[in-house]
Amino acid sequence: MAQREATNHKPADDARRGERALIVRIGAELPTARAGVPFGDDLASIGAEADRLLWSTDMLMDGVDFRSDEHAWRDIGRKAMAVNLSDCAACATIPVAALCAVALDERMSMEDALELHRGLRDCGTEFGCPLVGGDTNSWPQPTVVAVTIAARPDAEYPPVLRSGAQPGDRFYVSGPVGGSLLGRHLSPKPRIHTALEINRRLAPHAMIDISDGLAIDLWHMCEASGCGAEIDTDALEAAIHPDALRLSRKTGRAPREHALYDGEDFELIVAIPATTPDAECRALGLLPLGQAIAQRALLLRNPAGQTRAVEIRGWEHFRDPSD
Amino acid sequence: MAQREATNHKPADDARRGERALIVRIGAELPTARAGVPFGDDLASIGAEADRLLWSTDMLMDGVDFRSDEHAWRDIGRKAMAVNLSDCAACATIPVAALCAVALDERMSMEDALELHRGLRDCGTEFGCPLVGGDTNSWPQPTVVAVTIAARPDAEYPPVLRSGAQPGDRFYVSGPVGGSLLGRHLSPKPRIHTALEINRRLAPHAMIDISDGLAIDLWHMCEASGCGAEIDTDALEAAIHPDALRLSRKTGRAPREHALYDGEDFELIVAIPATTPDAECRALGLLPLGQAIAQRALLLRNPAGQTRAVEIRGWEHFRDPSD
Repeated sequence: MAQREATNHKPADDARRGERALIVRIGAELPTARAGVPFGDDLASIGAEADRLLWSTDMLMDGVDFRSDEHAWRDIGRKAMAVNLSDCAACATIPVAALCAVALDERMSMEDALELHRGLRDCGTEFGCPLVGGDTNSWPQPTVVAVTIAARPDAEYPPVLRSGAQPGDRFYVSGPVGGSLLGRHLSPKPRIHTALEINRRLAPHAMIDISDGLAIDLWHMCEASGCGAEIDTDALEAAIHPDALRLSRKTGRAPREHALYDGEDFELIVAIPATTPDAECRALGLLPLGQAIAQRALLLRNPAGQTRAVEIRGWEHFRDPSD
Repeated sequence: MAQREATNHKPADDARRGERALIVRIGAELPTARAGVPFGDDLASIGAEADRLLWSTDMLMDGVDFRSDEHAWRDIGRKAMAVNLSDCAACATIPVAALCAVALDERMSMEDALELHRGLRDCGTEFGCPLVGGDTNSWPQPTVVAVTIAARPDAEYPPVLRSGAQPGDRFYVSGPVGGSLLGRHLSPKPRIHTALEINRRLAPHAMIDISDGLAIDLWHMCEASGCGAEIDTDALEAAIHPDALRLSRKTGRAPREHALYDGEDFELIVAIPATTPDAECRALGLLPLGQAIAQRALLLRNPAGQTRAVEIRGWEHFRDPSD
């Protein structure tokens, strides 16, 4: 989701459709953001009475985010929980508990419905986030699963927002990306532990998880922060997941394309101040990606120093079919 | 939703479909309930680190809970927020903030999407519950709206659960019921203020809001509490909403039927100990309904003292089509 009111922010085009335009307009019509977390970050603050808790919600739809005719219901449940836990990781927070509301396709069996909830429960349990309640509905349409997670900040380390990147920061990614469609997208590993270590040791300026794609999520961070990014081509090549290579042999597209544009990797993009030694970042398994720049653009930079614009695209809901 | 593990509880039939059977089975496979709130009550406890916060989620689907071809999107937004606020009222808690996840029918206009969120925002604002975040998605299916609300208990008055009714308690309802379909169902008035006053003044044993119907929600309370209920016919007649009379002229069904079985009244059913004077209950506008009994049954009792069973039915999701 998009940031609400960054003063240095290129305004969204109100006339355009698209999820981000919608989020900007919804946010603009709401009262001021609470507890310093802008509308549209990965988590929201629950309120003044509970400043230490944050929460997040994510909805998955059959045919869009999963395919019940191909995937096991327990895997679907795991994924629904994991993508929400990934939002907790993106802010370097510790998940506390989860709720799940479902609209079940009325043709589902009781066992399928239970399998879905077992997947939710198991993935939550694995990350210390018990499923504590929910809402069960059915209807004659494809199944929808909405998970809400409450999280708390790490004791002495405030949550990391997506809006704090500054020109000169170095960008890292928490693991290789691309080709998740070959199977990893069904069993995402929320980087909660890594995120907490990053926050404790590296003084990060900003963080986001890759759900829609490396290029667009990096751009989301840049937009929220009021800066741009230069991706080093060598660094990008070194951050390509083996699955992206395998997938490129099927699709005929370059592995780099899969690394830039495939969604659902659920790795973290982190903006680290230049004062943090690179060796400390690598010690946590982070892969360098490039650097933040003042120019509001997303660029690829080759070893000779030549740059060219990266096309910014990725999955976005609520776009006009003609876009 | 159903209570998790009441020791005196008639077990759900595992073989039967239906939302309540599903909830009982999901709850049975989860770790122990947290902070004393059983899985399936109107609210859930967020967790040990935040014992003072509770939360709730409710999902509304186009064609089931609202009809976008008949209702204005702003009204639909208001309703989605109101039914969640009604869950806060059912526990006598104070709403703090809300999140909303949506799967928008991709044919919706940007203005419709904004109107939906304006309705959510306005209804939340009216009850001190700002919309602070969410998740926006679109898909080629009917619109789904899932709201999550966090609430805090009233300072010195613990939340009221649905599971505390005891034989001998008197049942009251917070307002006349039935016929909400004539329009009230679209602008529910969550009884938050009334609920807090009830909790402060009347020492209630149990409370629930009427979403599926007076008979079935009273029965939900009885099931959770391990008791039964006798509804006095005279009291029931006096609690029939004028809309139920108007609707009965259209449907040909008795007004009493509409009072017992119409959903979406969002009034509260309260179990009050016999030691609380009836006059104090009436002073808050409560209407008497009957009394809790040890027998696990839902009965109608006429002035001569004769009783007969009330058929227990109402809206339930995930039922077998053959039920």
